[in-house]
Amino acid sequence: MKLYTSSRAPNPRRVDMFLAEKGVHDIARVEVDLNAGQHREPAFLARNPLARVPVLELDDGRFLAESRAICTYLEALYPEPNLMGRDGEERAFIEMADRQVEFSVFAIGANYIRHTHPGLAALEQPQFPDFGKSQGEKMLHGMRWLDGRLAAQPFIAGERFTIADITAFCAVEFLRLVKFKPTDAGLAHLAGWRDRIAERPSAAM
Amino acid sequence: MKLYTSSRAPNPRRVDMFLAEKGVHDIARVEVDLNAGQHREPAFLARNPLARVPVLELDDGRFLAESRAICTYLEALYPEPNLMGRDGEERAFIEMADRQVEFSVFAIGANYIRHTHPGLAALEQPQFPDFGKSQGEKMLHGMRWLDGRLAAQPFIAGERFTIADITAFCAVEFLRLVKFKPTDAGLAHLAGWRDRIAERPSAAM
Repeated sequence: MKLYTSSRAPNPRRVDMFLAEKGVHDIARVEVDLNAGQHREPAFLARNPLARVPVLELDDGRFLAESRAICTYLEALYPEPNLMGRDGEERAFIEMADRQVEFSVFAIGANYIRHTHPGLAALEQPQFPDFGKSQGEKMLHGMRWLDGRLAAQPFIAGERFTIADITAFCAVEFLRLVKFKPTDAGLAHLAGWRDRIAERPSAAM
Repeated sequence: MKLYTSSRAPNPRRVDMFLAEKGVHDIARVEVDLNAGQHREPAFLARNPLARVPVLELDDGRFLAESRAICTYLEALYPEPNLMGRDGEERAFIEMADRQVEFSVFAIGANYIRHTHPGLAALEQPQFPDFGKSQGEKMLHGMRWLDGRLAAQPFIAGERFTIADITAFCAVEFLRLVKFKPTDAGLAHLAGWRDRIAERPSAAM
């Protein structure tokens, strides 16, 4: 297998952290330079016509894109520790938590950053700063929901660490780019959870 | 089980179509009136604090939100016909196709409609029409990718009908609200696929 990825981007980090939690450190990596536009070059588009990292090349030559789909594949290949659920029911509840984080925090936070941060003007064309600001407010709504959830349980999907914690952690860490800190927003439970997750070896970059 | 849903909204339709493909027609339904704001009332927020339909209430009283997570649960409960993959590898490739449709067509198309359609001003506050228009152009990019894919294979994820076809079909049908038709955009393969899917009993509303 070979992983086409960009080390500092938030979606690639999800797969990196997933692999680290599995204890898998020997997959070959090819760095894709997003700032140089390598993801829009023909060689990369042949791997993923939608021009997104990461992409996993399988040993039979097929390409698998989309972070969460890559994790589904890796979960089957390396079942322990389980991160996505042991049966259909648990898989469904973890997927619910993961998607809630993805849509209400990760994607909205990414919109917020991509439409307001001057450093991302080349990636997001055109930027719509007013839209971006409104996404920042909606993201806070999602963060508050997450904070309430973490007041009642230690991890995003319940009693144990799962892929939903990875998605949420990568989102919160990405938001450091715009100086967002859970404590500044008064989100003590989210801040405590963030600090606990940051101590895991998989969180080191 | 009980399904809290809104018959004419695109995400609820994904679950409706999934159930119809499974031949399941006996789940109790509770209609949530989005235009009247019922999804923001305390009774509904107790079921899903993120105020989104559909939500599946299980027999043990738990609530499962997020269309795709509900489908994961239903797939385990009603395994045939298989719509999400028979093993980890197939599940991963179908999830890839489903997510690509979801992010590059469904979500972008929804942004396009929600930020430009006067009839949705009450649901999307505030609307950003310029952002909406740019999403319409990006959506066309996603549609062209889909059209190319359907030039090479009969269904979105390959040789058989899967959940990815449901996601794409619900997106394309939702776009009729803004008079979008694949043929008008010169997307002949997408149009042919749409017409074939529309003939399935599960596509009837």
